[in-house]
Amino acid sequence: MLSKKYRSMLGNASVIMELAAFASARAREIGAENVFDFSLGNPSVPEPRAYDDALVSILTHETGKSAHGYSQGLGNREARERIAESLNRRFDMNYGAGDIFMTSGAAGALAHAIRLVAQPGDEIVTFAPFFPEYAPYAELAGCALRVVPARTEDFQINFNALDEIMNPRVQALLINTPNNPSGAVYSAETLRQLADWMFAKEAEYGHELWLISDEPYREILFDGQKPVYVSKFYPRTLGCYSFSKSLSIPGDRAGYLAVNPACGESRTVAQMAVQVSRGIGHDSITAYVQRAVAACCDMTSDFSVYERNMNLLYGELTALGFSIVRPAGTFYMFPAALEPDAAAFCRKAARHDLILVPGETFGVPTHFRIAYCTDTGKVERSIDAWRKFVRAEY
Amino acid sequence: MLSKKYRSMLGNASVIMELAAFASARAREIGAENVFDFSLGNPSVPEPRAYDDALVSILTHETGKSAHGYSQGLGNREARERIAESLNRRFDMNYGAGDIFMTSGAAGALAHAIRLVAQPGDEIVTFAPFFPEYAPYAELAGCALRVVPARTEDFQINFNALDEIMNPRVQALLINTPNNPSGAVYSAETLRQLADWMFAKEAEYGHELWLISDEPYREILFDGQKPVYVSKFYPRTLGCYSFSKSLSIPGDRAGYLAVNPACGESRTVAQMAVQVSRGIGHDSITAYVQRAVAACCDMTSDFSVYERNMNLLYGELTALGFSIVRPAGTFYMFPAALEPDAAAFCRKAARHDLILVPGETFGVPTHFRIAYCTDTGKVERSIDAWRKFVRAEY
Repeated sequence: MLSKKYRSMLGNASVIMELAAFASARAREIGAENVFDFSLGNPSVPEPRAYDDALVSILTHETGKSAHGYSQGLGNREARERIAESLNRRFDMNYGAGDIFMTSGAAGALAHAIRLVAQPGDEIVTFAPFFPEYAPYAELAGCALRVVPARTEDFQINFNALDEIMNPRVQALLINTPNNPSGAVYSAETLRQLADWMFAKEAEYGHELWLISDEPYREILFDGQKPVYVSKFYPRTLGCYSFSKSLSIPGDRAGYLAVNPACGESRTVAQMAVQVSRGIGHDSITAYVQRAVAACCDMTSDFSVYERNMNLLYGELTALGFSIVRPAGTFYMFPAALEPDAAAFCRKAARHDLILVPGETFGVPTHFRIAYCTDTGKVERSIDAWRKFVRAEY
Repeated sequence: MLSKKYRSMLGNASVIMELAAFASARAREIGAENVFDFSLGNPSVPEPRAYDDALVSILTHETGKSAHGYSQGLGNREARERIAESLNRRFDMNYGAGDIFMTSGAAGALAHAIRLVAQPGDEIVTFAPFFPEYAPYAELAGCALRVVPARTEDFQINFNALDEIMNPRVQALLINTPNNPSGAVYSAETLRQLADWMFAKEAEYGHELWLISDEPYREILFDGQKPVYVSKFYPRTLGCYSFSKSLSIPGDRAGYLAVNPACGESRTVAQMAVQVSRGIGHDSITAYVQRAVAACCDMTSDFSVYERNMNLLYGELTALGFSIVRPAGTFYMFPAALEPDAAAFCRKAARHDLILVPGETFGVPTHFRIAYCTDTGKVERSIDAWRKFVRAEY
């Protein structure tokens, strides 16, 4: 018989996808240039030319097993060596190729990470605002996702609220910094405090806790900041990375799970990820994509447009009376709506062709997300719509 | 805490991978040309040139979202349309793009198929000899894999043995034709008999049964045979296909799940597969790989070397006294060993630098697998080793 579980999920269409569909339909009516679609987190800047060159070079000069043969269980060895070397050099880490497991983006990395450290019946704690797909990631692995309410003044961690939710069934904490949807970046101080808190809880419960770090926006930082590398702070960290945003290649499905060697058995954990893969049919990713992302793992796309858009929107919207935690990175911001129900607020905005995502889907129903991965001209042209919208409705 | 389940799997290294490692080590000692490694099912013929051309064309002429943007949940729409059209034309089917779900090879398709039709606690029936990864596919989805003993005289279905294993907890039958490791192809008569048997069991149990058809070797057929398309025979069939063997691109990880429209709700089932994906982090595959395999879905590599190798080995080995069901396709054969314990037989063969896989791993401990996806010169040179081996040991 067909699975009732997956059938029942069909009703819950993604709010973001529905909004994107509405925006597309409206664009056909009045022209795409007149719809200010801030719904989707789809990179708007091109990939580095070197990335396409790396792919084309492999596909032009190699054939058969060399270009198209199976990868090893962990992934292509040279790709993993290059990635480990890059992480070690940039973040003063100590990874070996055996600590890196190539995955289908951060989604693949997270699916493996959860299965590595949590069994059905366990709990995983995350922090609002959070990426909505965390819920199926946890629940379809048989785990409950517990959400710590947001600290809306700065989107750092609300430790009192974390204390209240914490219990011995929790096996892992799942964090996302730089954060989708808020653009907040956890400070070194926040991460140090989190690590101390986790050490204390491990001692109290008498079992290990794992930190799952979802970090696809690691390199998209504003004001010339350098990345704070989460795994530096806590030994039992599973770093879940994606090249989707750093190289603007979400369709290529490339990422990795990096097991912190400080945990003491990182090689074993990485090999266990290969076993997880046997159950979920993940079985590595396109071999030459692995090699090309590794060749470009020290590069990024040009992110200056995201920072320009952020500054423009932040300035204009705060002037219009919005309360916003200024993003430190990503291509999102997460202002408070101008009425308590952000869903109603977003419906009114849509009447002015401003397509915004209500915050309920991220666990904060009073706020809304703006994805400003679009050209600056469009952001500039949207300002007038923002002004008219606020004047007309509030 | 780290998962005990996945840790416990670490001990069970794949017999095939161990043999391949042994063969590599021996090759470093005496030269690769002197080791007759028949262990791995890795295509030895090159991919069609048109496939690389399709990839290079996309990567050279397109940039940003066009080449590297997200795919839809089911996969790239044009790719799915082309694949559906090809299946309809070649096999007189009635697929729409909405019935095709792009996957990471047949492994990805099988992982989805099992979750679509079986819940934890259910059973899945397969037929010896079978691909050993079926066990983790089923068991890590919480299901038990029940194995019907082989009908060694022709490797068609042993219906009496199937009757004995069948029970109401079984939700799906998993077949693989053309078969790895036997090279047997189910006849239309076998498939018709299987469908009738399944209809009768559905009536008896009062619940639907699904047929999961693992068909990566669909086009590798000998003696000018045409494929027998499994879904033609039974409405509730989930076709699990891979381009790994047909285009010789196992490292590209491209395949699809084709839901038979005759089941009456194929669109729903395909959309349910997208939901399964949300839990296992599968999230589609490389976008331009989807487009390139679809552009080449009517082509195959040149398989003539496999047929030449099969005829050569079949002739020589039967002359040496081996009992073999002559393969009708694939690049495998599965002879009976010359002593009851095929593992002992394979250890003796390894002393003569013939690397063969004992059949226990496929559920038939009296037989062994030869993977003859290698150049014909090597097969020819191996004949002397076969003769010496048989003369010396038996």
